[in-house]
Amino acid sequence: MKYFVYIAIERKEAILDPQGKAIEHALESLGFQEVENTRVGKFIRLTVDAAAPEAARAIAESASEKLLANPIMETFSVTEIIPIENSHRPAVHGRTTAA
Amino acid sequence: MKYFVYIAIERKEAILDPQGKAIEHALESLGFQEVENTRVGKFIRLTVDAAAPEAARAIAESASEKLLANPIMETFSVTEIIPIENSHRPAVHGRTTAA
Repeated sequence: MKYFVYIAIERKEAILDPQGKAIEHALESLGFQEVENTRVGKFIRLTVDAAAPEAARAIAESASEKLLANPIMETFSVTEIIPIENSHRPAVHGRTTAA
Repeated sequence: MKYFVYIAIERKEAILDPQGKAIEHALESLGFQEVENTRVGKFIRLTVDAAAPEAARAIAESASEKLLANPIMETFSVTEIIPIENSHRPAVHGRTTAA
């Protein structure tokens, strides 16, 4: 079974995020007064072949620790594990149909 | 009520993703044979002051359409809406406790 595993990688709160600040100011200029403290991070979507969602999560966490995240400045978390033939995020995957 | 709203912004599948390819090859070298087709995207975390989660989502979607996402190359989706005092993602927020 194949899964999309999404890993969010975020700078620690103490680390400055100039890109987030720039977005915050741009949103304010556009009239979004309700928005504050914007942060930008990256996510990585792995396609993992695993027997079960928890096995896919373990592989993704291992990959994050060994390669993807910088433990000094960043934190990571697995945010979603989606069986590929049953995606509930059509907008992100660019599909309009979901099984 | 304040919410963290996470917006995932992903390149459309047809757009090449060299950073994802590089990660894919690096993971393969490290022995992660179960992982394929890796993609990298960004996410933006807004702190939104709204009356309800659906109102926070509407603000985030409007911000994505007006500023954050490039509709030609990217798709976006709101992936999580978390009341700030009840976060379930302590790893990402750098906290070890959650209410």
